[in-house]
Amino acid sequence: MLYYLFKYLDTHYNLPGTGLFEFITFRAAAAVILSLVIAIVYGKRIIRYLRSKQIGETVRDLGLEGQSEKAGTPTMGGIIIILATLIPVLLFAKLENIYVIMLIVTTLWMGVIGFIDDYIKKFKNDKGGLPGKFKVVGQVGLGLFVGAVMYFHPGVIIQRTVSEAELTENVKVVSQRTDGTYNIHDSELLTTIPFVKENEFNYSWLIDWAGEAYKKYVWIIFIPIVIFIITAVSNGANLTDGIDGLAAGSSAIVALTLGIFAWVSGNIIFSDYLNIMYLPNTGEMTIFIMAFVGALIGFLWYNAYPAQVFMGDTGSLTIGGIIAVIAIAVRKELLIPVLCGIFLVENLSVVMQVSWFKYTKKKFGEGRRIFRMAPLHHHFQIKGYHESKIVTRFWIVGIFLAVLTIVTLKIR
Amino acid sequence: MLYYLFKYLDTHYNLPGTGLFEFITFRAAAAVILSLVIAIVYGKRIIRYLRSKQIGETVRDLGLEGQSEKAGTPTMGGIIIILATLIPVLLFAKLENIYVIMLIVTTLWMGVIGFIDDYIKKFKNDKGGLPGKFKVVGQVGLGLFVGAVMYFHPGVIIQRTVSEAELTENVKVVSQRTDGTYNIHDSELLTTIPFVKENEFNYSWLIDWAGEAYKKYVWIIFIPIVIFIITAVSNGANLTDGIDGLAAGSSAIVALTLGIFAWVSGNIIFSDYLNIMYLPNTGEMTIFIMAFVGALIGFLWYNAYPAQVFMGDTGSLTIGGIIAVIAIAVRKELLIPVLCGIFLVENLSVVMQVSWFKYTKKKFGEGRRIFRMAPLHHHFQIKGYHESKIVTRFWIVGIFLAVLTIVTLKIR
Repeated sequence: MLYYLFKYLDTHYNLPGTGLFEFITFRAAAAVILSLVIAIVYGKRIIRYLRSKQIGETVRDLGLEGQSEKAGTPTMGGIIIILATLIPVLLFAKLENIYVIMLIVTTLWMGVIGFIDDYIKKFKNDKGGLPGKFKVVGQVGLGLFVGAVMYFHPGVIIQRTVSEAELTENVKVVSQRTDGTYNIHDSELLTTIPFVKENEFNYSWLIDWAGEAYKKYVWIIFIPIVIFIITAVSNGANLTDGIDGLAAGSSAIVALTLGIFAWVSGNIIFSDYLNIMYLPNTGEMTIFIMAFVGALIGFLWYNAYPAQVFMGDTGSLTIGGIIAVIAIAVRKELLIPVLCGIFLVENLSVVMQVSWFKYTKKKFGEGRRIFRMAPLHHHFQIKGYHESKIVTRFWIVGIFLAVLTIVTLKIR
Repeated sequence: MLYYLFKYLDTHYNLPGTGLFEFITFRAAAAVILSLVIAIVYGKRIIRYLRSKQIGETVRDLGLEGQSEKAGTPTMGGIIIILATLIPVLLFAKLENIYVIMLIVTTLWMGVIGFIDDYIKKFKNDKGGLPGKFKVVGQVGLGLFVGAVMYFHPGVIIQRTVSEAELTENVKVVSQRTDGTYNIHDSELLTTIPFVKENEFNYSWLIDWAGEAYKKYVWIIFIPIVIFIITAVSNGANLTDGIDGLAAGSSAIVALTLGIFAWVSGNIIFSDYLNIMYLPNTGEMTIFIMAFVGALIGFLWYNAYPAQVFMGDTGSLTIGGIIAVIAIAVRKELLIPVLCGIFLVENLSVVMQVSWFKYTKKKFGEGRRIFRMAPLHHHFQIKGYHESKIVTRFWIVGIFLAVLTIVTLKIR
């Protein structure tokens, strides 16, 4: 909201410095600084409050070294991440921007779902699968909302170049180019395919077989895909959140990468120069994303080994949801398997472990394991690596994957 | 050298993919990936070799918890950083670029000085101040070289806009602008001042009092400044290298920030858009810097708590030298106190501790201390913080300072 205040001051009184608030770069930097400060300064109080309410995690006994020390560490620290993200966004972002609205809704929605989840786990003895149900409701609900916004909202557009023959009545011509083609705005469901030259995939191709008349029903296919992506990423973040600092740090790396995509995609000069899809209005997401990155890094102040707080499902489901939604909004969701490779591998390790165990149990009468323990990070813990070492190495792998993701856009 | 090969293949045979090597972004990404791989894959072998030669650190007994476990950890791991930086640079960078040459020389020179330093400390019982002397020789020597290159080399130029009246015979006109002013190349010793609107400082102003005729002797002032900067930063890195992962991680953050500056400063479109000094040819440094960042992060694979290797002076002096030289080359050396704030504070903590001890000893007969122990990271260790926690928090502070540094360029 400060954005509007300063804009007013700039327009009416031309006060020095107020003009800076026009720049996305400046507001993004202000957002990351503020979110770091909020997470670090108020994080301490929130942790103290959580501890006073005895919201400690009932640590599953995995027989791991140093684990008993963790009993009593407060959970639901995700609240810190949520507050440290939303406050700078409310202050510095343009709140009428559809992408910003979508991300605020995502944060609140998944935050509430995660909170209910944590609450039931902690205070209700009768668990009876309730947390799992809430999680699914949350993810499907978010998927419906985001899929619908991406398809139906008039603010969600792409800009591309077409020839005169391709001009239809659904597109808005922005300008004519010197070579006779047109820059247009339309609302096609395009997404970037890595490694391919003509690298844009149109979801409407999935419904091509039905004929032109049914093209407008592409959302029937698109929305389930969005639900799947959101579910996969938020479950991935959820499973990754098993040792100190792992989920927060890995997510900060992913989010920073998406922040670069959002900034470049929303800037007509940079997106043109780097040959990345130009998506009007997405630049404003940079402010949300940088606040989110700052919140995650600030949270690490307390969550790094040895952790004084855990994020809980309040944190991990929210983080996963936000990452998935940003990736979809910048049309880079097909890059998620690479960029969020850590979430993917953690997810797969559980799926593989469980399936193999069930299969061998049926076949040989006794269940066998692929990993010493799943999710994967516990496997390394049992093998004797120090928790802190595992986390740093997972971060390094995350950085590697982030670089790879950026490179895929160049290699075509 | 691959750069030249692929350029040849592209020009003569137009092989698919070879054209990518024209892009700085692509080569920088390739460099960071390769350096990560080298550091992680070959790092293991180098560590094994160092251990077999018993090049372990004689850990100073500071009475700190967990310290005895560290005796026997091999040092001189800086060799990993040096190799993982130089190999990708030799493969992917344009080796005729003066900035790239300057950085290669810096790496080799400081690497050798650091190596001698480590070697004397380890294998010569008669230490007699030799290591300290070598260090000073190394830093002063590097300062002389870098100062001279920056002032005398014809490849080190800036591009700026001047009016017709300002055209002198020393400048090369690049183009005339639509408003009648000129884009020119010259070799003024300009540097960026943070927070100031007309934010360029010309070192020749320091010699203005002597009259126009003496302006060409500005190097007499400039070179000592360069020596001071290099000495300060490399001593800072040296002192920061006290607990697992601290120097490598903090330096990676600093280097990444400088990498952004180098890339933007060397790109005429981006530097113009972001209103940053355009420095022709500096973009090529991005490849060196990204290889360096990858090397540091890859080194962390083994250096993160609990460390399997230390970088030694071979590492820390080299890192400090490289960072100082890059900052000078992109004309952002006045931002070092903010960007390298961790080095500065570690340095100051030692200076303050020692001076106060000496002063109080003289005045009261017994020496008093400001910190429980200096450099600062040991102070927190004695206060009971876990080594791994201290390091993560210093990194977070480093990230905060990096963001601040970037912001200073906007706030004028």
